[in-house]
Amino acid sequence: MPSARTPGSSHPSIPTAALVALCCLLASCNATPRETPAPAATTPPAAAPADPLLSWNDGPAKKAIVEFVVRTTTPNGPDFVAPAERIAVFDNDGTLWAEHPIYFQVAFALDRIKAMAPSHPEWKSKQPFKGVLEGDMKAVMATEHGLAQIMAVSHSGNTTDEFASLVNEWMASATHPGTKRHYNEMVYQPMLEMLTYLRANGYKTFIVSGGGVEFMRPWVEETYGIPPEQIVGSRAKVKYEAKDGVPSLVRLPDVDFVDDKAGKPVGIHQVIGRRPTMAFGNSDGDFEMLEWTTSAKGPRLGVIVHHTDAVREWAYDRESHIGQLARGLDEGPKRGWVIVDMKNEWKVIYPFQRMM
Amino acid sequence: MPSARTPGSSHPSIPTAALVALCCLLASCNATPRETPAPAATTPPAAAPADPLLSWNDGPAKKAIVEFVVRTTTPNGPDFVAPAERIAVFDNDGTLWAEHPIYFQVAFALDRIKAMAPSHPEWKSKQPFKGVLEGDMKAVMATEHGLAQIMAVSHSGNTTDEFASLVNEWMASATHPGTKRHYNEMVYQPMLEMLTYLRANGYKTFIVSGGGVEFMRPWVEETYGIPPEQIVGSRAKVKYEAKDGVPSLVRLPDVDFVDDKAGKPVGIHQVIGRRPTMAFGNSDGDFEMLEWTTSAKGPRLGVIVHHTDAVREWAYDRESHIGQLARGLDEGPKRGWVIVDMKNEWKVIYPFQRMM
Repeated sequence: MPSARTPGSSHPSIPTAALVALCCLLASCNATPRETPAPAATTPPAAAPADPLLSWNDGPAKKAIVEFVVRTTTPNGPDFVAPAERIAVFDNDGTLWAEHPIYFQVAFALDRIKAMAPSHPEWKSKQPFKGVLEGDMKAVMATEHGLAQIMAVSHSGNTTDEFASLVNEWMASATHPGTKRHYNEMVYQPMLEMLTYLRANGYKTFIVSGGGVEFMRPWVEETYGIPPEQIVGSRAKVKYEAKDGVPSLVRLPDVDFVDDKAGKPVGIHQVIGRRPTMAFGNSDGDFEMLEWTTSAKGPRLGVIVHHTDAVREWAYDRESHIGQLARGLDEGPKRGWVIVDMKNEWKVIYPFQRMM
Repeated sequence: MPSARTPGSSHPSIPTAALVALCCLLASCNATPRETPAPAATTPPAAAPADPLLSWNDGPAKKAIVEFVVRTTTPNGPDFVAPAERIAVFDNDGTLWAEHPIYFQVAFALDRIKAMAPSHPEWKSKQPFKGVLEGDMKAVMATEHGLAQIMAVSHSGNTTDEFASLVNEWMASATHPGTKRHYNEMVYQPMLEMLTYLRANGYKTFIVSGGGVEFMRPWVEETYGIPPEQIVGSRAKVKYEAKDGVPSLVRLPDVDFVDDKAGKPVGIHQVIGRRPTMAFGNSDGDFEMLEWTTSAKGPRLGVIVHHTDAVREWAYDRESHIGQLARGLDEGPKRGWVIVDMKNEWKVIYPFQRMM
């Protein structure tokens, strides 16, 4: 999960405080996405070898990761890791799928407000909702806790089953302003291959994201092959109660847990309970997760996806409002972490580019 | 997780509020365990058939459970459940291992206080510690939030790694006052077989316990074959920080989550994120877990272990201070839940009885 340069609102009654904190500078940036140029399609050779990481160039990142996996799965080798201990954790936003121009979960929240508006005529004249309905994000941000209110209202007041349905409906219909693709098509093909490759080598793959766990669960299994019970994320409080006589879990407008920065090792501990062997992130919001992973005994690997491709994706790091990466670039190499240069190490970005 | 008849202390700064609430009536009951009579050994016949549930008599409970498993795993059958959806959740105290005369985690807490006492000379004259050191549980209970203090002090102030080591050391050395066995030997042989049987049928087995998740993780994998990432339990707050320069998760004396009663569906949702297909419990603390499991669409099964064997284990239900079971007995059968009569349906209780 990415990190913002300056801390934003920390209003407590929002389901995804991390997201909000990270988005509060949006008012000052252009909310209209720049058009993504038509990607340069790279078709793998017809008679390609059985390379599980086909979309990766034979660069230093691929080499280091494969070497590590071979080392930790070679029986009787000095760095062999027992299958039960092979845990690989992945951030989501910016690591497994894109995160520009705004976190996709924020796009979902804005669309929810628009969908809910007919039942709330008062929103036409009440900020921050008025701003959302008029596409005026500056007005939203100018409202105290404006985005926090948007997140809370759009993410609560329903049961967990109802919320999952809303996410599914949105994912099947909404499209990204730049690529015009569904958001779950904007996952990174090289990372899909990495997930499959690691699982084939006995690694259990988990998501550890600052995003909301309930926003991810409905679509992540089909998209990444990661089941709901292997997703760690930020959480809203939920309450068990009978709703219309049916036992239900009702989502409350309060944050239960923020799975970002120093929260990531906590989330890993709460849900997984083992120190991971490998951790993949892309921003300083992942720093503590990589630190926690790689500071334990035994073979450990930290990997940072560095967004360097301004043509096929977005290029950003130290100065970005979303997915800021500075400390990771400064300290990562010294800590032995692998920095993936997206532009030079990835043959394609999205799965749909392989078809072109 | 068992339930007490009357709510006990709800002091917030304890790592396992559920345990404490459930134990607050201990002052009025005899803390000295009754000796367990030598168990009547039941040796399975030498040429036993390949029955995965060998320690179960061919009673109604075994029949109902096996019938359900066959039904949900028969391809193309009307009640077939896809492998990814086969989630079976188990309470721990009183369901997978024993819970008398006090929750084993409370025994651990009392032993921790004794081990820590040399560094705290003031405890000799300060309740509730004085009571623990003198074996005077009535004095502990007479102190406001006495047991809560014991739980908080015994369970915090160390890192998660240090705490896991303490649990391991205790489990390897401490013995139960009645059986003189290590606590992790007092698991139920028929339930071990049930876990193995379900896993062999594609069910993923989880623990969902009111006990502390960090108290379970160190020994559960070896004992039950359930990995740390499949354990849901009550949690203390932890904080990520450098301790002596080492990135650590430090345990705080505050409750983060109580996985009991209506908390169990919440815990299931937080960590697993799917509605279970099967749920096993033994007390009214498990009622909501069974209700949540069995009120969803599709084939679902709830199972209650009823402690009916005063000779080989303990017989208790409606009037028990620990593991109270009343609503489950009243409503369970009407809801289609299976009630396991331990005395009549289990050939042996503990694994060590099979050796005798």
